[in-house]
Amino acid sequence: MEGHVKTFNFAPGPTPVPDHITQKMTEPILSHRSSEFSELLNQISHDLKYVFQTQNDVLILTASGSGAMEAAVVNLLTPGDRVIAIRSGKFGGRWVELCEVYGMDTTVIDVEWGNAVDPAVVRDMLINQGPFKAVFATHSETSTGVLHDMDSLGQITHEMGCFLVVDAISGLGANDLKTDAWHIDIVISGSQKGLMIPPGLSFISMSKGAWEEVKSNSTPSYYLNLKRAQTSHDKGLTPYTPAVSLIMGLAKSLEDIKQIGLENIFQHHARLAKITRAGVTALGLPLFAKQPSNVLTSVTFPPEVDGNKLLKTIKTQCGVTIANGMEQYKGKICRIAHLGYHIEAFEMLIAISALEYGLSHSGFSFQPGVGVAEAQRVLLETASLTVD
Amino acid sequence: MEGHVKTFNFAPGPTPVPDHITQKMTEPILSHRSSEFSELLNQISHDLKYVFQTQNDVLILTASGSGAMEAAVVNLLTPGDRVIAIRSGKFGGRWVELCEVYGMDTTVIDVEWGNAVDPAVVRDMLINQGPFKAVFATHSETSTGVLHDMDSLGQITHEMGCFLVVDAISGLGANDLKTDAWHIDIVISGSQKGLMIPPGLSFISMSKGAWEEVKSNSTPSYYLNLKRAQTSHDKGLTPYTPAVSLIMGLAKSLEDIKQIGLENIFQHHARLAKITRAGVTALGLPLFAKQPSNVLTSVTFPPEVDGNKLLKTIKTQCGVTIANGMEQYKGKICRIAHLGYHIEAFEMLIAISALEYGLSHSGFSFQPGVGVAEAQRVLLETASLTVD
Repeated sequence: MEGHVKTFNFAPGPTPVPDHITQKMTEPILSHRSSEFSELLNQISHDLKYVFQTQNDVLILTASGSGAMEAAVVNLLTPGDRVIAIRSGKFGGRWVELCEVYGMDTTVIDVEWGNAVDPAVVRDMLINQGPFKAVFATHSETSTGVLHDMDSLGQITHEMGCFLVVDAISGLGANDLKTDAWHIDIVISGSQKGLMIPPGLSFISMSKGAWEEVKSNSTPSYYLNLKRAQTSHDKGLTPYTPAVSLIMGLAKSLEDIKQIGLENIFQHHARLAKITRAGVTALGLPLFAKQPSNVLTSVTFPPEVDGNKLLKTIKTQCGVTIANGMEQYKGKICRIAHLGYHIEAFEMLIAISALEYGLSHSGFSFQPGVGVAEAQRVLLETASLTVD
Repeated sequence: MEGHVKTFNFAPGPTPVPDHITQKMTEPILSHRSSEFSELLNQISHDLKYVFQTQNDVLILTASGSGAMEAAVVNLLTPGDRVIAIRSGKFGGRWVELCEVYGMDTTVIDVEWGNAVDPAVVRDMLINQGPFKAVFATHSETSTGVLHDMDSLGQITHEMGCFLVVDAISGLGANDLKTDAWHIDIVISGSQKGLMIPPGLSFISMSKGAWEEVKSNSTPSYYLNLKRAQTSHDKGLTPYTPAVSLIMGLAKSLEDIKQIGLENIFQHHARLAKITRAGVTALGLPLFAKQPSNVLTSVTFPPEVDGNKLLKTIKTQCGVTIANGMEQYKGKICRIAHLGYHIEAFEMLIAISALEYGLSHSGFSFQPGVGVAEAQRVLLETASLTVD
């Protein structure tokens, strides 16, 4: 860890932590049973509702996002329940694994990587093969960079009287997600993405209907039990020792988000995405996601380019991390994240510059500077959209 | 959090984080899929074996200690398994809750708070009421300050062919715990106690026998699944996004512990305990724990003292946090922690000074300064035992 040159991280989480938030986490650690800590939790609880766009409580778990995903499954369902899980990438696959591990009667909707699920397919399945108790979906699929239409899915599941459970781990705070207005019953998120604090915390909101179901559910759970979490939450506590330092950072991050305003933050992410995609497209590289999320830009490598080698080159020679594709797309695509309200538009030029560096060592033919120039053109053109 | 006078925290975890470890956690956050991070995990894995005194792997979970306790139960057992859970305080009670939630046939050995379990009682139960698959015990019970005899329990369970599962969340790194030599099959610990980093990580070691049992176990689990954790560990990874910043701090803390040496650290904690108990006893206050742990000193309040009021007084007027008793002992006892290899002997004088301050406002009669003077006498007498 010592002796590194300066590095730049465009992986889609953990996102870089802003210095002033890091600073908050260096303050003397609070006792989780102190009144100061309870006050902090109450403030956070209030602010998380704003970010989740919900009137319902958002519970905090000391676990990464997958822990909160498991909490949704084991607290809402009973083994044998019929559910639909949408798998359009690695993280949608996690819903399938969880539902299967816990013995649900799981119908999988497989969507080709790079595409979003067609809500009509979900509707047809609910009508023709139902009833199902819940649909498990992904807001922004981090493995492909695709944004899914949660508004439409929420309407459909609401009409059909079926719970909608959404993994918004990477999407929250980058793409709009109107939890209540869109009738999403359970939303999961994590700390290390749009909220820009280190990994280790996850969050879960429940609609009144979901909470009624959870209250009467008797599937065994303990550490991830949401009834315990809610009971403690109502007293300004957590059921088990929480990740106190991360919670201290979270309070500051939420304060920033409130101050900037969610709408501005969504617009800012859209701008970062636009700049990045302009640069990538000018280089002659195809975008991988058909319905792209503002979290990241996924790029298809041309056949002549060895993606693994290119990413390694820019990592070792430029100190720039761009994420590789996952599973069958390893070496075939890359993923440039522009995630976090604290990322500046200028920083995206570094990603495009590094991509050009890698391409120039790959045998791929392009006019040097054309990616950066186009990204810069869009940066200037959209300058009126800056957050500040 | 702003505007506080300087505060002093003698609660038994989260322990204060040493500044140079806090500093490590402020470095740019590593990607959990980078080679740098894998190298860090490998180093930590090596060092955790030293602290756990085991040749077996110690797995890391992003969860507080209760998460690792659940991992032990759901990965080792199958619903209906006959187990013994020793409940000698609040945290022993957590083993009972976990075993019951997950449907084990649980026999509880209740031990009066302030006492340690008699190993002969466990032996008799194993002989007369067995077979049992596992015994769940607590190394240092944080709610009472009692140390339990894990060496004897390990001999007994080993002879009887029964697994021993030990919660060493607060005891690890303060009281000796020879995992392998004492035949302890599963040891659980957490980050925010003797290891002196913030809460959010927990650890679990498994004997070869326990691992064979875990491998063939089919009780559903996912986030806390130890087969997944082991598979990832073998590749220098974690199955889900880990709490990266805490792991960066952990690496430094383990480096310190190795450098100081475990034996020195145990002796240091014994010294801190001796100084504290000398002060408490000189004040005429009875010690609560019959077999005291080096983690904390539990003190019984005399009947004329309102313990809740006293602790509140020293918190608000002195900025000193001493932990209250838990459950039925709230207001009846207090708990002065001396936990963490980085706590200096001098610091214990602050705890005794604050206790005297509280007593002087409680109507309790004592000679001012007698506690501090006696603590100081022992501090000087034991000065040859300093770690440095």
